[in-house]
Amino acid sequence: MEHGFIAWAKARAARLPQIRLGIGDDCALIAPSQTDSVVTTDSLCDGTHFILSECGPRAVGHKLVSVNLSDLASMAAEPIAVFLSLCLPRQSSGEIASEIFEGVCASCERYSVAIGGGDTNVWDGPLVVHMTAIGSAPAGGAWLRQGAQPGDAIFVTGSLGGSILGKHLDFQPRLSLARQLHPLGIVRAATDISDGLGIDLLNVTVASRCGAEIELDRVPISQAAHERSTQTGRPSIEHALGDGEDFELLLAIAADSVDRVPKQIDGVPLTRIGTFVSRTGLWSKTKRGVEQLPPRGYVHG
Amino acid sequence: MEHGFIAWAKARAARLPQIRLGIGDDCALIAPSQTDSVVTTDSLCDGTHFILSECGPRAVGHKLVSVNLSDLASMAAEPIAVFLSLCLPRQSSGEIASEIFEGVCASCERYSVAIGGGDTNVWDGPLVVHMTAIGSAPAGGAWLRQGAQPGDAIFVTGSLGGSILGKHLDFQPRLSLARQLHPLGIVRAATDISDGLGIDLLNVTVASRCGAEIELDRVPISQAAHERSTQTGRPSIEHALGDGEDFELLLAIAADSVDRVPKQIDGVPLTRIGTFVSRTGLWSKTKRGVEQLPPRGYVHG
Repeated sequence: MEHGFIAWAKARAARLPQIRLGIGDDCALIAPSQTDSVVTTDSLCDGTHFILSECGPRAVGHKLVSVNLSDLASMAAEPIAVFLSLCLPRQSSGEIASEIFEGVCASCERYSVAIGGGDTNVWDGPLVVHMTAIGSAPAGGAWLRQGAQPGDAIFVTGSLGGSILGKHLDFQPRLSLARQLHPLGIVRAATDISDGLGIDLLNVTVASRCGAEIELDRVPISQAAHERSTQTGRPSIEHALGDGEDFELLLAIAADSVDRVPKQIDGVPLTRIGTFVSRTGLWSKTKRGVEQLPPRGYVHG
Repeated sequence: MEHGFIAWAKARAARLPQIRLGIGDDCALIAPSQTDSVVTTDSLCDGTHFILSECGPRAVGHKLVSVNLSDLASMAAEPIAVFLSLCLPRQSSGEIASEIFEGVCASCERYSVAIGGGDTNVWDGPLVVHMTAIGSAPAGGAWLRQGAQPGDAIFVTGSLGGSILGKHLDFQPRLSLARQLHPLGIVRAATDISDGLGIDLLNVTVASRCGAEIELDRVPISQAAHERSTQTGRPSIEHALGDGEDFELLLAIAADSVDRVPKQIDGVPLTRIGTFVSRTGLWSKTKRGVEQLPPRGYVHG
């Protein structure tokens, strides 16, 4: 990062005791932990993941942190530090960097994450922002995509679909929910819903070598999915299954533990939407029977 | 990363025992270490750090790994894993990704580093590649920029300048050199030369709250710096001081340990080029006397 930015960052960035050495050297140093380190990385590009001229740079910084922390939450990890790398358009690069950093700092303070370091570049292209987040696995082990078993219940947090109408820029990674749910010991597999319920559920079934049956009328459809439906003419359920960027958690719960799942945590509902099954693939269960479900969520009929 | 790429990456990527869980879940898991984790992050943009149409994607992958490992080497850290994030131009995105990945894999195998995970995006802009590298600090502690004291000798590895003629795409991060030098316990501060000897030395003096005096006729000038000099008409020494992207190490050696510095390690010479001094700032020492030296390395006529 350039010098003025580093000085500013040092003054602003929340530091955690684990960060022995933060911004300003060749690398950052993070103190050893008792548990595994959990690492995730995501890039966001102007025109693909956000439209800078519409949302402004601060929202980009906010989304960047949230997207990364959502990955940590999906493993029930506690965030330690984020590393920010910016490729800034030459035009107003300083202003854009400052505003992104304001967004990043605000989000990091909210979730008690340190800004461990980074890199800024100015170039002749549109804005690209990149973040790597490092966390620590919970005692007892991180939630993985593998581990779901036939008979396990499928749960989701919150409601799904229509994220493009605003939620994709302003959502809460489910860190606190995961922190409260993990100690119950009832989650066998997990992921976050970033590509869409269908695809992310398929990822869990592939990792867990099983299939999944969704009861379509149980899927919590967001208000935004209904709004999108009026715009697109497609059923709301398709938006809930396929839109993506919900950043909710998808969980496999052991069948005999379903009663122990809290109805809500911090006001966020947990909803059972189906069951993992031994027959591989994705299946939808309605009054009409069981049908194969395309991962993109396009429902027949 | 997209599915085909993940499968290919899983098969190709060298794994180290520290990587409990690599590519294919929401995050990677790295086993706890006895020493600090060392983290660095760098982005490279088409047109700024490389010209894709001239060097090809494989060289980009190679440079990306080397740039990150050079930061780890400058702290005498041992690399564990790298995390790759690609923003690919829509045109030929698959081919470009595969070739970058070939370059990344080859470099990672060479330095025994795991590919811990990543993220691929396709967008309507030029190629941007991003990497975060994680390593472990050496027992006894990482080399930092702070720690140089007045009277310490300034050493550099290799020779400097003219990197743009080719070295910036194909250099060896000084991991092995650092691995052999660190146990001698004679290095008090270090950095790698990425922005140019002048700027990187200034960074060490600022972190160490001292100044530095360079003996210009001792600076090891590369053959490429001489070639650049014939192209630009500027003295070779200016290229050695200011070009940057040398990715050599800059070291502070305690005055009473200068005799213990190896003349070379693995065929790479270590050269004393000056002395840290109590007077802050950068100074050049020639037969004409001592003059202030601009960090960019432009030497007065």
